[in-house]
Amino acid sequence: MKVTASDRCQLKGWESRLMSADEAAELIQDGMIVGMSGFTRAGEAKDVPLALARRAQRDPLKISLMTGASLGNDIDRHLTEAGVLARRMPFQVDATLRAAINRGEVMFIDQHLSETVEQLRNKQLGHIDVAVIEACAITEDGGIVPTASVGNSASFAILADRVIVEINLNTPEALIGLHDIYIPQMRPSRQPIPVTDAGSRIGTPHIAIDSDKIAAIVLTEGQDSPSTVGVPNEDTRRIARHLIDFFEHEVEVGRLPPSLMPLQAGIGTMANAVLNGLLDGPFENLTMYSEVLQDSTFNLLDSGRMTFASGSSITLSEECGKRVWSHLADYRDRIVLRPQEMSNHPGIVRRLGIIAINTALEADIYGNVNSTHVNGTKMMNGIGGSGDFARNGHLSIFITKSTAKNGALSSLVPFVSHVDHNEHDVDILVTEHGLADLRGLAPRERAGVIIEHCADPLYRPALREYFSEACQRGGHTPHCLEKALAWHIAAEKEGSMLSLTRGD
Amino acid sequence: MKVTASDRCQLKGWESRLMSADEAAELIQDGMIVGMSGFTRAGEAKDVPLALARRAQRDPLKISLMTGASLGNDIDRHLTEAGVLARRMPFQVDATLRAAINRGEVMFIDQHLSETVEQLRNKQLGHIDVAVIEACAITEDGGIVPTASVGNSASFAILADRVIVEINLNTPEALIGLHDIYIPQMRPSRQPIPVTDAGSRIGTPHIAIDSDKIAAIVLTEGQDSPSTVGVPNEDTRRIARHLIDFFEHEVEVGRLPPSLMPLQAGIGTMANAVLNGLLDGPFENLTMYSEVLQDSTFNLLDSGRMTFASGSSITLSEECGKRVWSHLADYRDRIVLRPQEMSNHPGIVRRLGIIAINTALEADIYGNVNSTHVNGTKMMNGIGGSGDFARNGHLSIFITKSTAKNGALSSLVPFVSHVDHNEHDVDILVTEHGLADLRGLAPRERAGVIIEHCADPLYRPALREYFSEACQRGGHTPHCLEKALAWHIAAEKEGSMLSLTRGD
Ligand SMILES: CC(C)(COP(=O)(O)OP(=O)(O)OC[C@H]1O[C@@H](n2cnc3c(N)ncnc32)[C@H](O)[C@@H]1OP(=O)(O)O)[C@@H](O)C(=O)NCCC(=O)NCCS
Ligand SMILES: CC(C)(COP(=O)(O)OP(=O)(O)OC[C@H]1O[C@@H](n2cnc3c(N)ncnc32)[C@H](O)[C@@H]1OP(=O)(O)O)[C@@H](O)C(=O)NCCC(=O)NCCS
Repeated sequence: MKVTASDRCQLKGWESRLMSADEAAELIQDGMIVGMSGFTRAGEAKDVPLALARRAQRDPLKISLMTGASLGNDIDRHLTEAGVLARRMPFQVDATLRAAINRGEVMFIDQHLSETVEQLRNKQLGHIDVAVIEACAITEDGGIVPTASVGNSASFAILADRVIVEINLNTPEALIGLHDIYIPQMRPSRQPIPVTDAGSRIGTPHIAIDSDKIAAIVLTEGQDSPSTVGVPNEDTRRIARHLIDFFEHEVEVGRLPPSLMPLQAGIGTMANAVLNGLLDGPFENLTMYSEVLQDSTFNLLDSGRMTFASGSSITLSEECGKRVWSHLADYRDRIVLRPQEMSNHPGIVRRLGIIAINTALEADIYGNVNSTHVNGTKMMNGIGGSGDFARNGHLSIFITKSTAKNGALSSLVPFVSHVDHNEHDVDILVTEHGLADLRGLAPRERAGVIIEHCADPLYRPALREYFSEACQRGGHTPHCLEKALAWHIAAEKEGSMLSLTRGD
Repeated sequence: MKVTASDRCQLKGWESRLMSADEAAELIQDGMIVGMSGFTRAGEAKDVPLALARRAQRDPLKISLMTGASLGNDIDRHLTEAGVLARRMPFQVDATLRAAINRGEVMFIDQHLSETVEQLRNKQLGHIDVAVIEACAITEDGGIVPTASVGNSASFAILADRVIVEINLNTPEALIGLHDIYIPQMRPSRQPIPVTDAGSRIGTPHIAIDSDKIAAIVLTEGQDSPSTVGVPNEDTRRIARHLIDFFEHEVEVGRLPPSLMPLQAGIGTMANAVLNGLLDGPFENLTMYSEVLQDSTFNLLDSGRMTFASGSSITLSEECGKRVWSHLADYRDRIVLRPQEMSNHPGIVRRLGIIAINTALEADIYGNVNSTHVNGTKMMNGIGGSGDFARNGHLSIFITKSTAKNGALSSLVPFVSHVDHNEHDVDILVTEHGLADLRGLAPRERAGVIIEHCADPLYRPALREYFSEACQRGGHTPHCLEKALAWHIAAEKEGSMLSLTRGD
């Protein structure tokens, strides 16, 4: 039987606030700060943003747009093409928006994902005029039940002057009760956040706001975009294998329990492949305390190897989505979706002792990691939550293929062209060639291990040569400054670092 | 009346463990991992380390030495000169040791100060063979009362096989009860750490260990070294003034309460000067949740402007020390010393909403900060706790003079030669010329503000030129890679960046 609006909306008199996406979009004015739901392409409002883009095509306007993280359904593309985005934060993954950011047309504020709403709450980032939140349902007293992500939606709705709710009739009712919405108390009387394991439930199942603020209710049936995660290949399988061997060894010597520690895994093909690798490992009773629950999470839950997964969103491939969304109730006791302020909270990350697995674009011989800027200048996506986890976790692991662009670029370089994670935040570095265990090593020791274990053999001689020349000059972290960026300069000029391997 | 050992040692049969420093030092063998008390030149064991250095001069041996942070009384110098240090972590400030590190002779593992004991506890950094802890007293059941610092002493003593206690008869009895020793529970059942304000007392006044582990008791009367903090000058006063104007403005617009938020201030002359600046500001009921309590802390407490200060050590000038140590009891209700794992805990830093004020060696036009590596290679001191606070605090402020070496070096550069704190972790940058409020700004916007507000006027044209050329090339964070490190290359070759100001 088809779901109707009244099935999902218990708020008295809601009908009077029902309107079309175009009408609701009129609430958004030029110059406003707008907060929208959406995290890792899940749970974004589907229709109002597009209505806004259509309107801006006729009648130009610009806003500052904040979200949880990336949006699906090409919304960032449509908004960029319509010239709507003056400012965008705290994360994105859209090719069109990325190009506009790199042309300097959209001011992108790339933030640690745990920090955005804290800064909003403290009035450090301005004031949210309108929040646009996708919902599965609205409760009797105006509580908003989010959909496939929580992201920053709760704080956006709480802090906004007016809230537009898009009720998505296509979302399963089993979402109700899945979320755990907790907002830290205001300082200075903030109490400890009582999360003590991945499964802790400490809040409410919906976003509680003054229902008078709900200025518009829009009905939609849009779908989340399927994840774009690529299939595992030989390289990602090798990376996974190195990591699993490492975990096995850590368990053997008593440094990790057989259930490991709660896992966080970044976005993308590689992180997903590594988690899938755990299906074949000897580990049991795994848990996850992460941002996005991907296909691999559900594979692990289905296999019985993982007992619980906490995230801020669910982003699945089409195939996995079919399986999960139609049987969501079966997972109800084993998953929870939290605000990203909770999923990424530095104190919880330290308390639980998370194993953080994130992806690098490149790393240098001392273990500094660049996750965001191609050639030090062009933004890829953003730092996302990687800094929340890498700084504060129990073990911080970065993975990357040893080369990019069919071997033309080495992902191991003398000096990273941009630093997102410095050597203090990088315990383990893994490529398809091997794993560098950097714990307790000084920079000069790190260099040897990274070059010999992680770099592509083609680039090793040039890296060894750089390091040895640098050591002759001295320093705790030896460098030849005039050659430090030569690899990137070659990449910029020639599209390739291969000339470095020939010593010219 | 002179204090005697039995006044300070309640442990039954302690006399049998009494020995000379030379005898106690014999417990330390070649290849061992040794944990010593000491944090910001306060509370280090005075005699056993020197006895060890003497022995090594005759009979070479090497150890891995861990401390809280820096040691006083030239102990790192003596140990370095005696060739004792194979490995050293997590922080140091000694010129002789620094030179050895930069020659690659001592492997220095530069760590976030909150992390060392967490990694030890999880067996990621090896096992402590011997701990050497300075104490004010030993309780009946072997509890160790630390002296002017806690640092990592508690966990070192708990994790070590054997403990050497140096009872310092010169320390005031009023130290007893001043410390708050709390050790987080083992994961996975760790509970929230219940610190909710600077004054929270959550632990015990001494380090509780199995008293059988106390293998030696040594009596000493050594003094802590006085702090080397320089006197405020025109530049530091200006920096303080800019910052206080900023705080006043934040209070005015309602972004900060009149008592501000708990303050953390880094080591050194500048941080101390800024805190002293608060004596003249309009702020009341200030609190501090920091690492080291310096002269400025006690000036603020004495003035009544500060109500409570929490730290991990007390490091004072000779003059201020005379006043404080002889009247320590008067401060008992207003100060507490904690393990550095607590003073720097990411979760507490986020919970309390700390204002972190740390010093940069240099910053780049996008707000990335280098606090450690001169010319990207030579270690100065270490990252210390700055990363714990800057990443997780409410406001992260970095201060620096706009130039160094009499203007020959600009501390504002196109591209920092090393990144300790990336743009995400730098909200406010201050030099004697002005303050750059970087909150909510994209990199291209940050550059304008930093160049115009912070750089020395002499270097501004060259920075503007770099930025404008870089913008023509594009990117989220524009750079001219082949010129990015030119300033440091000039500094290396010519000892000066002045050639850049002449465009040659
Ligand atoms: C780093 C990151 C871009 C890698 O993504 P991925 O999908 O796993 O990795 P891929 O190998 O497919 O690389 C993505 C692109 O970067 C390119 N790339 C990879 N390494 C590169 C390098 N060293 N230099 C230049 N380009 C490189 C790839 O060629 C590919 O380009 P394409 O899209 O044109 O094919 C991604 O993980 C990311 O954005 N991370 C930062 C945020 C984060 O860590 N989030 C986790 C918590 S939210
Ligand atoms: C950065 C730091 C070295 C500054 O110390 P400070 O005493 O306040 O500052 P000073 O201006 O006196 O600078 C110290 C030295 O660095 C030099 N220096 C400063 N800026 C420099 C630059 N841009 N390039 C090269 N040298 C520079 C100074 O000339 C001075 O050298 P000298 O000792 O030979 O005279 C110090 O704060 C530090 O070690 N910080 C890192 C750890 C930290 O932040 N701890 C806080 C929490 S524990």
